[in-house]
Amino acid sequence: MQATINEITERLVDSYCKSGGINHLDGKNLPSKRAIAVITMDLLRLCFPGFFDEKLLHSSEIRPGTAALVSEVLNSLAVEITKSLDYNPPPELQGGKKDFRPIARAYTIEFLNSLPSIRELLQTDAEAAYNGDPAALSKEEVIVAYPFVEAIAVQRLAHNLYLKNIPLIPRIMTEWAHARTGLDLHPGAEIGTHFFVDHCTGTVVGETTRIGDHVKLYQGVGLVASSLSEGQRLRGRKRHPTLEDHVTIYAGATVMGGDTVVGEYSTIGANVFLKASVPAHSLVVQEQANMKVMNKKERQKKAADFAV
Amino acid sequence: MQATINEITERLVDSYCKSGGINHLDGKNLPSKRAIAVITMDLLRLCFPGFFDEKLLHSSEIRPGTAALVSEVLNSLAVEITKSLDYNPPPELQGGKKDFRPIARAYTIEFLNSLPSIRELLQTDAEAAYNGDPAALSKEEVIVAYPFVEAIAVQRLAHNLYLKNIPLIPRIMTEWAHARTGLDLHPGAEIGTHFFVDHCTGTVVGETTRIGDHVKLYQGVGLVASSLSEGQRLRGRKRHPTLEDHVTIYAGATVMGGDTVVGEYSTIGANVFLKASVPAHSLVVQEQANMKVMNKKERQKKAADFAV
Amino acid sequence: MQATINEITERLVDSYCKSGGINHLDGKNLPSKRAIAVITMDLLRLCFPGFFDEKLLHSSEIRPGTAALVSEVLNSLAVEITKSLDYNPPPELQGGKKDFRPIARAYTIEFLNSLPSIRELLQTDAEAAYNGDPAALSKEEVIVAYPFVEAIAVQRLAHNLYLKNIPLIPRIMTEWAHARTGLDLHPGAEIGTHFFVDHCTGTVVGETTRIGDHVKLYQGVGLVASSLSEGQRLRGRKRHPTLEDHVTIYAGATVMGGDTVVGEYSTIGANVFLKASVPAHSLVVQEQANMKVMNKKERQKKAADFAV
Repeated sequence: MQATINEITERLVDSYCKSGGINHLDGKNLPSKRAIAVITMDLLRLCFPGFFDEKLLHSSEIRPGTAALVSEVLNSLAVEITKSLDYNPPPELQGGKKDFRPIARAYTIEFLNSLPSIRELLQTDAEAAYNGDPAALSKEEVIVAYPFVEAIAVQRLAHNLYLKNIPLIPRIMTEWAHARTGLDLHPGAEIGTHFFVDHCTGTVVGETTRIGDHVKLYQGVGLVASSLSEGQRLRGRKRHPTLEDHVTIYAGATVMGGDTVVGEYSTIGANVFLKASVPAHSLVVQEQANMKVMNKKERQKKAADFAV
Repeated sequence: MQATINEITERLVDSYCKSGGINHLDGKNLPSKRAIAVITMDLLRLCFPGFFDEKLLHSSEIRPGTAALVSEVLNSLAVEITKSLDYNPPPELQGGKKDFRPIARAYTIEFLNSLPSIRELLQTDAEAAYNGDPAALSKEEVIVAYPFVEAIAVQRLAHNLYLKNIPLIPRIMTEWAHARTGLDLHPGAEIGTHFFVDHCTGTVVGETTRIGDHVKLYQGVGLVASSLSEGQRLRGRKRHPTLEDHVTIYAGATVMGGDTVVGEYSTIGANVFLKASVPAHSLVVQEQANMKVMNKKERQKKAADFAV
Repeated sequence: MQATINEITERLVDSYCKSGGINHLDGKNLPSKRAIAVITMDLLRLCFPGFFDEKLLHSSEIRPGTAALVSEVLNSLAVEITKSLDYNPPPELQGGKKDFRPIARAYTIEFLNSLPSIRELLQTDAEAAYNGDPAALSKEEVIVAYPFVEAIAVQRLAHNLYLKNIPLIPRIMTEWAHARTGLDLHPGAEIGTHFFVDHCTGTVVGETTRIGDHVKLYQGVGLVASSLSEGQRLRGRKRHPTLEDHVTIYAGATVMGGDTVVGEYSTIGANVFLKASVPAHSLVVQEQANMKVMNKKERQKKAADFAV
């Protein structure tokens, strides 16, 4: 029995020695996924006070609770940012520098100081979600129940860290939200005020997307890159589309390419595949589907063949 | 250090004072998301006895275990419903009434008494899932492994509370299931017997949808509302489609609008966007895609341009 | 109060007696979902050493940690496989045999011995993910943050157990990954080297799918079966498509049917519905959507009617 365990272990250790890319041994510490999940949850508490707590918060007691959360996040986020900079320092920090701890702390403070302005943006998103969905009974329902609120809050937080060129952490944050909500908002995307994604599942907003104000998406919408066979050579280029203000995109539509601009007040219908710009006030709809009406007997005869 | 924490805290507290909609302070208690998650999991245990437990259940010992779960749910659900009614009493309960606890308890008992009839519906769904998927090896596999079973069970439970006009809780329940399964079934939807959604991810069934018996959907199907720019003005109107008995809708199809009726025994093909009614026995398929076959050289020349 | 609980309990127990399919009472033990989740997580740790741990691993200390994990998985997986074989022995094990424990242990050892070769495949997938996505900053980011890596690792592990005809466990494993990533890869699918699914959410790869090397899919892609009304009668038949080497399929496309072969180096555009084979080097794109450009006044007049 112990012999079997030893044998399997040896084979695995051999495999760890042979293959490089999927081991993380003898290297530098990576930021911890678990720690970042806890930090992100705490940041959501700071953004939406009273919504994630079991008991009611009174404004008289809000100060100590907030200070405790701020202190917690300040310490743990600075540790993770230090690991992240140690691991892969951005170009502007490369060279002589060895101890990234003071820089990480300064970044963290800067980041926490920006929470009030992030909250102002989130306020507009919550309004857009409430106003845009007749199924929403109250703004509280939107914040408590809608996956969108969590996903956009995490993206706006991660975007702030992304702009500071902090590696790994922004993406770990948005993938945490992606797993919980089905909505994949890259931390690099620039997103205006009053954004709303209804139902969320399957919608993807790529890294270099630019989104204006009052934009509304539905589930399964892709704002994606073309020419993807070039892979890494495209890094840094604008690869994803631009949506101007007041654009609406229905379920399952795909808009592709860095030069594609959807003009303001345009509507893209469900399941459209758009890879060229459209001017303001456009309405783009898929060709009417080809419809066949068959009677019961015909259908039974064709039962084995969906395609007809 | 403490000064920094205080400074950040002050900025946040200022922000809490300024912006209203995304704070929950000094208000009434909201139903607890965490408590509702525990209750929902317990309800799934009551619906599918023996499936979510580590050790085998014998029918001789089923009574005490069931009674313990019932007692647990009765107490905790009554507390959450009380909070929910306090928070936002439905029209028929507004006026003089102050103590909603007896009403919440009565609702909870009524709800628990309806579990056997909800179980009868779920039995038909499990049958439909097993019969409809050749990859299913046994009914046990369907109940243990298929995300659909969890999602439809939660919807049928939440629909019962939705019909009692209890705010917030039904939606928190279905969003809990949505996060776990990718299937977004609104608690308001009326769903017949023998329902099945294969693969689940990205399928959305809107609030005022009506679904007949023996209906089968695939992943990424949207039963959605049109004219969404009107937002809150549409609340309460039938905004989502009606599917009659024995309708099948393939992956990625979108059916839109409150007046759209898909007649019985109809099939809607993948990626179709349908916004008008179709009679019984219809087969609706997307126009044949435009196909181009290029040789290797042409492809290489065009490598940078997906669009051709 | 106790009377109410007893009454509800009696109604439920009556319902448990009446309806069969959704109870699991007096039967044999089912494999435990929770135990399988823990085992799967441990297997991911064995596949990607150092990536899921909080503190840095040195190669000098890798042996004891690996041996401990191997021992843990060996014991617990053998228990679950025993339950699974007891529950529903595959044809080749039916007849006289009563004690499946030695067979389960032998299967588990065989499975653990195959981890190095599974790791070689996963190495090619991680490479494909990094090379194929310009948003990826490093291979570490791919492994730490991308849902795809987790989903494909679980599929390749489960596929190994699937080939041994072990019931229930492979599907419970892939559904665990499906819930976490939105990517539904059936354990039966045969998948070549250098596979990559970007964004993951909503993509479905059916049981009898065959996928060559260097294949790239995007979110919302369905590799699905046709003629599904026949349900269980189709079990065991090849029902899902074949993709040859170097095929790329964009978001939301559906490829259907067991005889459908997508030739090597072909590209299928977004939202295409394909149900016939295409030769090598094909490019299949959806017909250009019908575009209408309306001015502001026309749009306002039509505000109530999306369909125009």
